[in-house]
Amino acid sequence: MSQPTKETIEAWFKELQDSICNALEEADQKGKFQEDLWERSGGGGGRTRIIQHGRVIEKGGVNFSAVHGTLPERIQQALKVNSRDFFASGVSIVLHPNNPHVPIIHMNTRYFELAYGTYWFGGGIDLTPHYVQEDDAAEFHQRLKDVCDETDASFYPEYKKWADDYFFIPHRNETRGVGGIFFDRLKESEAHSKESIFDFVKNVGSAFAPAYTHLMHKHGNKSFTDAEKNWQLLRRGRYVEFNLVYDKGTKFGLETSGRIESILMSLPEMASWQYDVQPEDGSKEKATLDLLKKDINWIHLNQ
Amino acid sequence: MSQPTKETIEAWFKELQDSICNALEEADQKGKFQEDLWERSGGGGGRTRIIQHGRVIEKGGVNFSAVHGTLPERIQQALKVNSRDFFASGVSIVLHPNNPHVPIIHMNTRYFELAYGTYWFGGGIDLTPHYVQEDDAAEFHQRLKDVCDETDASFYPEYKKWADDYFFIPHRNETRGVGGIFFDRLKESEAHSKESIFDFVKNVGSAFAPAYTHLMHKHGNKSFTDAEKNWQLLRRGRYVEFNLVYDKGTKFGLETSGRIESILMSLPEMASWQYDVQPEDGSKEKATLDLLKKDINWIHLNQ
Repeated sequence: MSQPTKETIEAWFKELQDSICNALEEADQKGKFQEDLWERSGGGGGRTRIIQHGRVIEKGGVNFSAVHGTLPERIQQALKVNSRDFFASGVSIVLHPNNPHVPIIHMNTRYFELAYGTYWFGGGIDLTPHYVQEDDAAEFHQRLKDVCDETDASFYPEYKKWADDYFFIPHRNETRGVGGIFFDRLKESEAHSKESIFDFVKNVGSAFAPAYTHLMHKHGNKSFTDAEKNWQLLRRGRYVEFNLVYDKGTKFGLETSGRIESILMSLPEMASWQYDVQPEDGSKEKATLDLLKKDINWIHLNQ
Repeated sequence: MSQPTKETIEAWFKELQDSICNALEEADQKGKFQEDLWERSGGGGGRTRIIQHGRVIEKGGVNFSAVHGTLPERIQQALKVNSRDFFASGVSIVLHPNNPHVPIIHMNTRYFELAYGTYWFGGGIDLTPHYVQEDDAAEFHQRLKDVCDETDASFYPEYKKWADDYFFIPHRNETRGVGGIFFDRLKESEAHSKESIFDFVKNVGSAFAPAYTHLMHKHGNKSFTDAEKNWQLLRRGRYVEFNLVYDKGTKFGLETSGRIESILMSLPEMASWQYDVQPEDGSKEKATLDLLKKDINWIHLNQ
């Protein structure tokens, strides 16, 4: 069996971007993606696709990029590699819905290749409900577990924990949402060929559109109050805090002079900070805060 | 002449907080500060004072703190000091106005003391107009120059440049606003006693209220359009980017588990991110962007 090349992988990421954009436009019924092609001065470029003011999606991006060139020494050190030539390709998604009953979602799948046959895959997908719904969280995690189990039954528990640790806001002592899976530096091993790892990454990417369009359909037409909208804006404030303070992809992009409007597509159209908001005991806002914790077994929460 | 002690300096910072809060309430005519007293588990505490939904000020904080205890080793290294016992006191202010024609303002004055007689003062004050007005910027800088010149004619040029470099958003290639002054690690020298440096810091602190209430009166009653409000929300997005990605005080607070609601009082009630907004040539939004540069000599801009 031939190993997937970077050309094959890049081509698949492009197709993934296409199919996700199509599925989201179909589910949204109003919003259309606007495409910006960009080139990187050091080599490569990308297709940024932004959707704004849709029926369900207020603002979001489904971005593809494939860049190559020379790694700055500082980044070589940070990545603990000693190759200067690199290739990196991936798809990055963040979607902020209008309706506070529809969760924010994020996905990233990426491939990194250096000289001398060094490569790895990475990625993740996580869900950030403004109001945590236990059944949605269970269903979302079950989907991800199914995807993981197809390749290796050890993946879900490991990558679920990784997501809990990664999508965490230390200064708030809160997880960003109900988590999902996160993985990095994934490569062939005794257990898995490069092709098998690539299949896993493809399965993660392919799981995105059905998982999210399901939630768009389920919650996108619900009515909501001003108080619920306000809570959504506050939760988006937390999302901004995570992305600007902790997210490694964002940091990497800002430090390496990436295309700033593509990187910061992850930020919501509108977010709010109000002083010391403390939801009342018994409120659904308080119930949500109480569920923004690591190590919750969503799939078996009520069993 | 006796040297000012940390008790004297702390007491003066408390008075500064009082007098600024009084002056702002008087100018606002509606907003009242809400006070939260807090204690730090390691020693000391603070008086957080927040104003929300005033006539002119939408959201802001005028915070005093005086903390002491043991410096974590990591912080000792970052500060390049080898003393474990520390005392730190200061006043920090950020004000976000309702009206896009009134600028955002920030001020900080602080005193840091270690064992063995090591100490320093630091501080800064800078103005972030949503729409840059050259006459306001000139007047603001003239006030700061006057304050600096009272102690040392070399201060203003040096600290003005320091502010240009500090209040800068590299990933946007924009200054945060029209700058001001910034200084750190200021202590006695052949030219200045500790008392003289403390006088300088007091003069900076005392300059705040007249400088800002003047702008509240001048612009607080102006009418504004939806488009101007939208531009304000976008500029606030930049303010959030600066504070969460680059501001050293914020980083220090987040990393040392400071009181999070006091630290993040600097964030606006509402901020916006929209994809790739490019103001038209000839618009006043474009004129503002063109003035968000380092090394503008505001005082002599039109001479």
